[in-house]
Amino acid sequence: MGTGKKKGKRTILFQKCPYITGASSVVGEKEGEGPLGRYFDIIEKDPMFGGTTWEEAESRLQNQAAQKALKIADKAAGEIEYLVGGDLLGQLIATSFGIEDMGIPFFGVYGACSTMGESLSIASMLIDSGYADNVMALTSSHNSSAERQFRFPPGYGNQKPMAATWTVTGGAGIILSSGKASKKQLKQMMGYLFTEKTEDCQLRITGITTGKIMDYGIKDSMNMGAVMAPAACDVIKNSLTDLGIKPDYYDRIVTGDLGKVGKEILLELLDENGFDIEKQYMDCGMEIYDEDFQDTHSGGSGCGCSAVTLSGYLLKMLFAGEWKRILFVPTGALLSPISFHEGNTVPSIAHGVIIERE
Amino acid sequence: MGTGKKKGKRTILFQKCPYITGASSVVGEKEGEGPLGRYFDIIEKDPMFGGTTWEEAESRLQNQAAQKALKIADKAAGEIEYLVGGDLLGQLIATSFGIEDMGIPFFGVYGACSTMGESLSIASMLIDSGYADNVMALTSSHNSSAERQFRFPPGYGNQKPMAATWTVTGGAGIILSSGKASKKQLKQMMGYLFTEKTEDCQLRITGITTGKIMDYGIKDSMNMGAVMAPAACDVIKNSLTDLGIKPDYYDRIVTGDLGKVGKEILLELLDENGFDIEKQYMDCGMEIYDEDFQDTHSGGSGCGCSAVTLSGYLLKMLFAGEWKRILFVPTGALLSPISFHEGNTVPSIAHGVIIERE
Repeated sequence: MGTGKKKGKRTILFQKCPYITGASSVVGEKEGEGPLGRYFDIIEKDPMFGGTTWEEAESRLQNQAAQKALKIADKAAGEIEYLVGGDLLGQLIATSFGIEDMGIPFFGVYGACSTMGESLSIASMLIDSGYADNVMALTSSHNSSAERQFRFPPGYGNQKPMAATWTVTGGAGIILSSGKASKKQLKQMMGYLFTEKTEDCQLRITGITTGKIMDYGIKDSMNMGAVMAPAACDVIKNSLTDLGIKPDYYDRIVTGDLGKVGKEILLELLDENGFDIEKQYMDCGMEIYDEDFQDTHSGGSGCGCSAVTLSGYLLKMLFAGEWKRILFVPTGALLSPISFHEGNTVPSIAHGVIIERE
Repeated sequence: MGTGKKKGKRTILFQKCPYITGASSVVGEKEGEGPLGRYFDIIEKDPMFGGTTWEEAESRLQNQAAQKALKIADKAAGEIEYLVGGDLLGQLIATSFGIEDMGIPFFGVYGACSTMGESLSIASMLIDSGYADNVMALTSSHNSSAERQFRFPPGYGNQKPMAATWTVTGGAGIILSSGKASKKQLKQMMGYLFTEKTEDCQLRITGITTGKIMDYGIKDSMNMGAVMAPAACDVIKNSLTDLGIKPDYYDRIVTGDLGKVGKEILLELLDENGFDIEKQYMDCGMEIYDEDFQDTHSGGSGCGCSAVTLSGYLLKMLFAGEWKRILFVPTGALLSPISFHEGNTVPSIAHGVIIERE
């Protein structure tokens, strides 16, 4: 459909598609023991990350992710013109303390677990428009700070239904640039996957499809998959329709944290709309933990879930040439500790980001 | 400095400066009784806005502001391509429920009381870049939902120090467009101020200066003015320096909610940096309430404070030709209910938006 955005469409195709020049992933011990463990940059065994409260732990985790992304991109904080990011905690408090020492102009965003999608969307626009040459998208979640905020203090050890997900302890920073990734940057991003064959490849964000808030009236905060499936369906359907393409244009269509329950609902909803994405479909929440051995019920969730899976694993698969194109669709459940105690429904949103290898 | 953003600068000057084609202001009874009362579109006497909880009250307030902005701009929700907004409550819950029925692609942002500045910044970029023709920036705060979240349930009637501010019950929607405001839109925005002389005037956002997080180590959540003054200073200083202009380029330099205490600190900080803005200076928090009769201590605050003062009053002064240019710098204190109970400092941020009459 050409670059830009056509009237009545939800998808923007970029003209100066940003390059990915840095990507970091920092996770906790449990995530490090999962199936994607070997792809993550840092596996921190101390759940407090050296801090004294769970909130401070998450700030330190997010700061580590930001610093690691800078290191991988071989850049100083002063070279990053904007930072776009946020987290799950009220008033984005993990982010405020996580980045305050970096001195980077900041757009704070909230999209619950879809935050990496929203951050990458805004960061991409900053590059495509020529406003900036280097922008970082950053997000995190921490199992214990999330449990404390949304559910019960972790020490209570309360039981969860099988539809519930497990909040990922993880943070990721992704640096987008107007210029190509250097050989050094590629090497640092790919690690041991870097070969002669991959040294010239580049990953670019070629488009975005912005979500709107969906609310199917579900009130069960322990069944986020069901809550978020309609938002993912809305974005995937509109993205494919806007571009006039079929699901097989992509090697993978990847949602954030629908988990086992949400997956089934999404596939059914898309099927009702005439789209069969079963062959391409992947969900970060179902990849990050081992279903049989890690006791995480429906799968992983949290801003960090899709962020570290993208930054640590999906980007490496693209770099390595396993896939050529993915549609990354992290999903967020827009509930607050107050809203569900007041018996409200849980609205949701998703943000679509198209990433292609060239 | 030409359009775009120069390397090492914090200010973007737009090439296709967005026009303001709709602006609404909805406030509570107390704000309606204040000095700016006659400038607001809707003064709602029911503090619950017809809802059953304070959070629902704020959602309804925000929805009213969005609907009124559409009405003033004579547009249907479907014509707005993006909505950029947020509020003070954890997980932006007032916004999620406030806009979920509107079906507009949504970027949720959090900048505490600077939210209207951040929303207008991103909304302006969406228009300037050609991604969209019509975007709404939206925000709100409600005194009782904020008190309940950050301090004590309103029913306790607890006492506050004189440095504390009063959270404004108010919401505003501002619609930015790629094309000029029509005579009808101008008439609806200006109300009784509309005259033959004003019927051809247009307001445009010509640039933005993005803030970074500042933290001077202050821990007193009852003295937000002192917390936020450094963030305002940083943005004003950088905006003037980037553009190589003096404060008298502007008819007004307007901060969000520094109040009496923050004002003195800001003027002193800027003076130390060689800028005297005393003649141009105005603070929304000091304009919205009557210092002598409304018992609001240091002044107004909250996302709604700067948003309704801009939308209801400042824009009208620009439209009416009282002023030609303003630098709007709403400020936000980035604390959470948890962070101050854990004894943390209060970081802050500000976002600068240049609005000019042509």
